[in-house]
Amino acid sequence: MGPTHIEHIGIAVESLEEAIPFYEKIFGFKCYSIEEVKDQKVKTAFFKVGQTKIELLESTDPDGPIGKFIEKKGQGVHHLAFAVNDLSGNLTTMEEKGVRLIDSKPRKGAEGLEIAFLHPKSTFGVLTELCEEPNINK
Amino acid sequence: MGPTHIEHIGIAVESLEEAIPFYEKIFGFKCYSIEEVKDQKVKTAFFKVGQTKIELLESTDPDGPIGKFIEKKGQGVHHLAFAVNDLSGNLTTMEEKGVRLIDSKPRKGAEGLEIAFLHPKSTFGVLTELCEEPNINK
Repeated sequence: MGPTHIEHIGIAVESLEEAIPFYEKIFGFKCYSIEEVKDQKVKTAFFKVGQTKIELLESTDPDGPIGKFIEKKGQGVHHLAFAVNDLSGNLTTMEEKGVRLIDSKPRKGAEGLEIAFLHPKSTFGVLTELCEEPNINK
Repeated sequence: MGPTHIEHIGIAVESLEEAIPFYEKIFGFKCYSIEEVKDQKVKTAFFKVGQTKIELLESTDPDGPIGKFIEKKGQGVHHLAFAVNDLSGNLTTMEEKGVRLIDSKPRKGAEGLEIAFLHPKSTFGVLTELCEEPNINK
């Protein structure tokens, strides 16, 4: 039980077009995927650094979660996502231990992962996502 | 050149005493070190998850950087730290490419690492640290 590593770090940016070249030219990471997640009203760009991905998030709608986040807090880290091997089991255990969940059941996220968010009120201000590879037991 | 992995994620919390049990009991991580960094006016607690460390930061002075951060933004992710193999070389190259540096030369950080911060104005709002193990070439 519990997370095995940091799957990705979600970073809210105003413009992927401006931010992607920074991560590519300054840090030398390669953007390997750009994906729109319509129900979250975001366009995402992914980079890999070691075990962890950087997920840049550009809002496609000012009323979406990233649009509101940037309006309130400015650009910056939006969430941390931890990889787990048994997402449903982790959610059950965490809820039993008093953690407030945003998603009580796994749902589909970017890159085909099963995901669920914990509420930042329960996680000392860090919006926290848990992710599971759907084919982990193959 | 460029970062090899995410060395740690710095998270500002109001109280280590409250936050440490969350990471231990809910996530199952083990706090392996508590360290005070006097010139930064913080007390830090470290956990390891995969390749990356979680560094919880509690302010020891409301006028210190973490005290001010929490006052302005609340608890949450304060900075991302990337591991590099040649910190001085990376700083020189990044400065040449127009990145604004907070530390133009490496200085000593927590855990004996050589560290330097990049300015969040240059890094799309993410306070970014670069770290080098001092004995990497041993």
